[in-house]
Amino acid sequence: MAEFEIIEKYFKALASSNKAARNLADDSAQFAVKNNCELVVSKDIFIEDIHFLLEDGGYKIAQKLLSTNLSDLAASGATPLYYMLGFGKSKNIDEKFIAEFCKGLRDLQKKFKIKLIGGDTSAAPKAFFSITIFGSVKKNQNLARFNGCENDLIFVSGNIGDAFRGLQIKLGEKNNYTKSQKNYFLNRHFFPTPQIILGQNLLAKKLSKCAIDISDGLLADLRHICKNSKLSAEIFLDKIPFYEKNLPLNQQLKLMSGGDDYELLFTVDCKNERKIINLAKKLNLKLSCIGFLTKKQRCEITLFNSQNQQIKLTKFGYEHF
Amino acid sequence: MAEFEIIEKYFKALASSNKAARNLADDSAQFAVKNNCELVVSKDIFIEDIHFLLEDGGYKIAQKLLSTNLSDLAASGATPLYYMLGFGKSKNIDEKFIAEFCKGLRDLQKKFKIKLIGGDTSAAPKAFFSITIFGSVKKNQNLARFNGCENDLIFVSGNIGDAFRGLQIKLGEKNNYTKSQKNYFLNRHFFPTPQIILGQNLLAKKLSKCAIDISDGLLADLRHICKNSKLSAEIFLDKIPFYEKNLPLNQQLKLMSGGDDYELLFTVDCKNERKIINLAKKLNLKLSCIGFLTKKQRCEITLFNSQNQQIKLTKFGYEHF
Repeated sequence: MAEFEIIEKYFKALASSNKAARNLADDSAQFAVKNNCELVVSKDIFIEDIHFLLEDGGYKIAQKLLSTNLSDLAASGATPLYYMLGFGKSKNIDEKFIAEFCKGLRDLQKKFKIKLIGGDTSAAPKAFFSITIFGSVKKNQNLARFNGCENDLIFVSGNIGDAFRGLQIKLGEKNNYTKSQKNYFLNRHFFPTPQIILGQNLLAKKLSKCAIDISDGLLADLRHICKNSKLSAEIFLDKIPFYEKNLPLNQQLKLMSGGDDYELLFTVDCKNERKIINLAKKLNLKLSCIGFLTKKQRCEITLFNSQNQQIKLTKFGYEHF
Repeated sequence: MAEFEIIEKYFKALASSNKAARNLADDSAQFAVKNNCELVVSKDIFIEDIHFLLEDGGYKIAQKLLSTNLSDLAASGATPLYYMLGFGKSKNIDEKFIAEFCKGLRDLQKKFKIKLIGGDTSAAPKAFFSITIFGSVKKNQNLARFNGCENDLIFVSGNIGDAFRGLQIKLGEKNNYTKSQKNYFLNRHFFPTPQIILGQNLLAKKLSKCAIDISDGLLADLRHICKNSKLSAEIFLDKIPFYEKNLPLNQQLKLMSGGDDYELLFTVDCKNERKIINLAKKLNLKLSCIGFLTKKQRCEITLFNSQNQQIKLTKFGYEHF
């Protein structure tokens, strides 16, 4: 299929009745941002055999691709608006893949009320995708990893390590999980839940100024908060929300370094703790307080076990290159 | 070099003192658009061995990458604001390449007053880049390929085919050009001139509503205008601005299909012809009227020679995949 045919047959439907997209017939998209709002933009690249396997199929790849980008907006407290797609098409991507890929995008578009507004396609030796996603926040509101304050409580949504467990299962790891448990973990790996509504609530209700989505792993992303807020963190192993209780320490540390959780890690002034507990109830979300930020010379994480003994940390998650 | 080191050492300098970029420490950028403006966004992907050769070196690759994106903004009449960079780093990209690449970006940033505000990096089997570029236009103003009107004159800036000639020279084509001519053509290939000021003038002075930048080739891009404006075009070979006079027909057709000119192709109401001539003088730009748009059943280009004979067209430029 030629480039223009693919755009015509598959991608145009994702942009329909949306003026900004200019019917995908132009190199540029054009749109206004509400007067009282600012734009939030994030860009991710997603490469075959590094971020995904072609054998996962177009549907799952599309869902993960767009979800992880939505997760960046969630960490900014933004309301999703639009996205653009860069598509490097390798020879082993066929029409069936593209059809399923577009279905994966379409289902998320509906769920999060966003539309495709443009992009670029090219032949490529290995498949890759690049998404730029647009959202909006009220002017002068800011949810960002550098906004942490001394004594802030550190909260995390959902569980830590479920997606990593799913990846291990996908890669053929031996274990004693039931079929339904395996499916649960695989779903957490393939279909992360962008915490858009949580992010919007944290920002709009002024419950938090500092958040990050966990992509590199709990420890690595908490370290980003520390480094950028110029603070340290003290966290408690028995407060970390794992799917299973009483895992051996090395397993727990693996899950905390595994990455791909796409849960929100955020910090909260102590006076707002009650409000966070209420928000968790209202949104029917698991929100766990795992520690607090503290002033220390070096931006470090200190991890304590239930006997209040310090556990030495060495691995902080995934780094590219 | 690790991912964070590269960002720290090279990319941060491209984003300095720019609030939107959040010091490249966040996954998202955040900025406001002026109340009376709309945002124009374009996204391109740029792949090793397809769009560039690593041996061209980081400086030239960066310049072409960012220029072609600026050219998309030019075709929308937009004022450049910011850009984001996706960087797939293959093993054969070393620190020297990255340093030169960033110098190439920096020089264009100065020239066009834009800043880097974010992006993403990853290891990749083959190098690729993906830029998302942001510009602004006044609200409800539109320069787009689908806005052509019947009887509009068709104008083009600069020369057609110089960049294609440069590519041929780079690839080792035998010819009789002098060294300085060869350098001229090579420069047109490596360093396209985004026609930002021309685009801004066309839009702000309401001289044109329809433009495209020539990336796929004059014929292919004129065909985009025709198809999207639901019109046909009649153009005249002896009006096409080639560097050389009296080229054989097959050479002329090659240059018109070659692509990578990054000149603006735009249409103008007849009543504005004089103003375009004046604008050309004011901006010290070569602007040539090559034909006009016409109502015909099929969106076709008809090309006439100086004897007013029709020349049959078969090849319309470059298509990916």
